[in-house]
Amino acid sequence: MIDQLIEKIEKTGAPIVVGLDPNLCFIPKHIKEEAFECYGRTPKAVAEAFYRFNKEIIDEIYDIVPAVKPQIAMYEQYGYLGIEAYIKTVDYAKQKGLMVIGDIKRSDIASTAEAYANGHIGEIEIEGSRHTVFNHDAITLNPYLGVDSIEPYIENCRKLDKGLFILVRTSNPNSGEFQNLDVGGEKLCERVGRSVHQWGGVVIGKRGYSAIGAVVGATHPEDAKTLRKIMPNNFFLVPGYGAQGAKAEDLKDYFNKDGLGAIVNSSRGIIAAYKDERYKNRFTEEAFALASREAAAEMKKDLEKVWR
Amino acid sequence: MIDQLIEKIEKTGAPIVVGLDPNLCFIPKHIKEEAFECYGRTPKAVAEAFYRFNKEIIDEIYDIVPAVKPQIAMYEQYGYLGIEAYIKTVDYAKQKGLMVIGDIKRSDIASTAEAYANGHIGEIEIEGSRHTVFNHDAITLNPYLGVDSIEPYIENCRKLDKGLFILVRTSNPNSGEFQNLDVGGEKLCERVGRSVHQWGGVVIGKRGYSAIGAVVGATHPEDAKTLRKIMPNNFFLVPGYGAQGAKAEDLKDYFNKDGLGAIVNSSRGIIAAYKDERYKNRFTEEAFALASREAAAEMKKDLEKVWR
Repeated sequence: MIDQLIEKIEKTGAPIVVGLDPNLCFIPKHIKEEAFECYGRTPKAVAEAFYRFNKEIIDEIYDIVPAVKPQIAMYEQYGYLGIEAYIKTVDYAKQKGLMVIGDIKRSDIASTAEAYANGHIGEIEIEGSRHTVFNHDAITLNPYLGVDSIEPYIENCRKLDKGLFILVRTSNPNSGEFQNLDVGGEKLCERVGRSVHQWGGVVIGKRGYSAIGAVVGATHPEDAKTLRKIMPNNFFLVPGYGAQGAKAEDLKDYFNKDGLGAIVNSSRGIIAAYKDERYKNRFTEEAFALASREAAAEMKKDLEKVWR
Repeated sequence: MIDQLIEKIEKTGAPIVVGLDPNLCFIPKHIKEEAFECYGRTPKAVAEAFYRFNKEIIDEIYDIVPAVKPQIAMYEQYGYLGIEAYIKTVDYAKQKGLMVIGDIKRSDIASTAEAYANGHIGEIEIEGSRHTVFNHDAITLNPYLGVDSIEPYIENCRKLDKGLFILVRTSNPNSGEFQNLDVGGEKLCERVGRSVHQWGGVVIGKRGYSAIGAVVGATHPEDAKTLRKIMPNNFFLVPGYGAQGAKAEDLKDYFNKDGLGAIVNSSRGIIAAYKDERYKNRFTEEAFALASREAAAEMKKDLEKVWR
């Protein structure tokens, strides 16, 4: 998947992943009301509204960005109907040619990790019958449990051309609480970064990048500089741009000299653009997806300062 | 929930939680075949089979153990139908009076953590209409992202009498890779344990125990001794007994002098007991749930050596 991701970044000129993290307060009135009319104020209605919302956004962005990253929590809170809408979203995005990074941040071991691996980046087998469940190209994972919680996924990365992004340095304000602890002369996140680099060594694509990357928040440019050296050929998935405060200028050291090595996420900055001061007067609520397209195009222009 | 858990442990005399982690290879033939006949070799069939399997086990154990712990990965791999079976299992266990610890090991921040908190140990609100989705009493969480990934849940623990078990020292062979790193004179897991103890200080029950506990694997008795001191009033959820190799004798230091402070998990040792040498000759495959009851009763007896 990493070669395909690079190819798509180069084709679109946009090292961007759009976070499909719908929230009821982002959904335009006309979509919400139609769903509530059909199903009442129920999880079913929200699931329908989320899928329609995502679909319209995907229709407007699929040709200008390489990938989307649905955040499963936003769907899972609505139970199995939410998960159904999540899966439909993944499938629709794939159908339109987008790559899909499932932001699931799972962490488990042994048969449990295998279950997640087969469900999320593989196939499940039911006595000889094979099924693809979550058709992700890559997923995010949490490393606290060590290699036992990563290894069961690596086999799928090799065999089925899938990818992983391991949480290394997250974008939240208190992410340093454990991630920045000194572990014998380096930070814990650097130590985790070394492991990611090592784990990734067995799945290197044609362009020299590994299918196993790292989540490195846009809010920590100093750490990113060090982590870039530790993980020279691991892609960074970068949350925290826009709504969380980071700017394009902060992202210089996230990219390698070849202009590759990072893909920057924006969620509400794109999917809820129509509510933003910058777009509110130019787009009606009904045209929310066009506002998303415009926001993605402007993000692309903004990032050109640092990666070209 | 912590007072209720203690009350149930005392009433049953069993500091035991039964892991409902179904796997197709544990499901008795007659259940599997009936489901395949109705639905083919599909996720729907597996979901039906899992629920029926769980239901029969719950019917046989609800009066002799305080709690069950479904592992969501085993269901999630089958997509939204798997999640539906998971939710039905949680609801049925609650209906029979069991407490339910959702083994979800989620890790996320901000609005995402709130979504998980409301979905898993709270209520979601859909424009004024409130719904309980996953009716857990407690869930497991991964701490790598720091307090930002825990705090959004604590409010629900306080307001709605819910609980958390934070991964501190997990039972897997390589769990020490990061958890045992030296962070200024103590292990990372001890540092995390200090945080758990501090976070838990705001939700103390009538018996002096916190609603925020820790996951401490049965395979690390030496660490447990230290962690017991660091977290004197935080309950330990203890995986790794039985199938993963730990014995009752290993668990002495997991309990406090009052006989409380730990609840030991067994999954396949109980739910797949009918396949075990010890029970195979005494129970038919159709009577698998009776074998589970027997295995739970024997585990109770085994644990009496160390906690009474």
